[in-house]
Amino acid sequence: MKLQLAVDRVSIEKAIEIIAEAEKYIDIVEIGTSLIKDFGLLSVQKIRQAFPEKIILADIKTNDEAEYEFSAVYRAGADIATVLGAASLETIKICQNIARQFKKKYMIDLLETSTEKQITLKQFSDGILCVHLPSDKKTGLESLISNTLSHIKDFPTLSVAGGINVDNIENIKKANFDIAIIGGAITKSDNIMESAKKFKLLMEEI
Amino acid sequence: MKLQLAVDRVSIEKAIEIIAEAEKYIDIVEIGTSLIKDFGLLSVQKIRQAFPEKIILADIKTNDEAEYEFSAVYRAGADIATVLGAASLETIKICQNIARQFKKKYMIDLLETSTEKQITLKQFSDGILCVHLPSDKKTGLESLISNTLSHIKDFPTLSVAGGINVDNIENIKKANFDIAIIGGAITKSDNIMESAKKFKLLMEEI
Repeated sequence: MKLQLAVDRVSIEKAIEIIAEAEKYIDIVEIGTSLIKDFGLLSVQKIRQAFPEKIILADIKTNDEAEYEFSAVYRAGADIATVLGAASLETIKICQNIARQFKKKYMIDLLETSTEKQITLKQFSDGILCVHLPSDKKTGLESLISNTLSHIKDFPTLSVAGGINVDNIENIKKANFDIAIIGGAITKSDNIMESAKKFKLLMEEI
Repeated sequence: MKLQLAVDRVSIEKAIEIIAEAEKYIDIVEIGTSLIKDFGLLSVQKIRQAFPEKIILADIKTNDEAEYEFSAVYRAGADIATVLGAASLETIKICQNIARQFKKKYMIDLLETSTEKQITLKQFSDGILCVHLPSDKKTGLESLISNTLSHIKDFPTLSVAGGINVDNIENIKKANFDIAIIGGAITKSDNIMESAKKFKLLMEEI
């Protein structure tokens, strides 16, 4: 299972510091939505400059204007861009096409998608589906996962985000996700490097 | 009917130029999603500085992290912030609360919302509902309006966006919207001031 570190609600400079501390133990750097909405594409450009070799996901959460947004964020240096599963199929198809043109990847965030929509989204088999517990909801991650996975568990590449910590990472592993997206449990810890290492070890052990 | 000018896909400096040309004929300045995703909150701060007296809407399209995003965008100078109707009710309720705390307004974008969700959203009667034809879809604005209005026509404040031009503005007026959101038909015209004036006159005539 790959470890994606989501960095949010800090300055670009602080984000770079956080990523540098965790770098050795993370597979994907996520530039969180808050960084993009606070600082724009500069956040992607600066973090790309600081980490030229790292896989970078920009959590731009496109929901319309897909060609413009995806082209811009790939040009700024992202390897993976995100689109809302709640967006229209037209929008998501454009994201898929732009990703192909740029030879990049895309992730579809299942936030607030219906079961019917989730099943429809299985057509985007070259993308990554992300089961996402929203910050604004107090429901449990485990129940969201079990409710969602029953529809999409055979999808090629699955990720999970929202409230992952050392206590529930074992269940995430058992559910066979390809990518676990972890934010505050690493970025807000006293020792970012040690926390990232701990998660990486927990995710890798057999 | 109020005229909201949506400014998108330009630099902040160019946006300020465009707004200055149209200023006299527009009621609300919309800082488009592309400006926020390209340049972050700096776009809101700079346009607020340039137009201290104008009503400014920031099309931030929040779909989670509502307290953080809405507080930040109001602090940056927005009078109105947008949230996706496709977001969870929890998220939209937080937007409503933050708007009340800041004594500001909020708009709920009905992009890709179901009829059921639209009816549920009528509880947010202090907000503005926006019937929105997405850029990525080729369906007609008129059919979208008639399909949506049957559910929400008694909502206190209604706006409409997406493909409005001089040929269909008459139908928009007849449908009794409170705000018409116009972008390219003004911003991409040869004479921005004249185009804004033309729309304003068409919207006001009896």
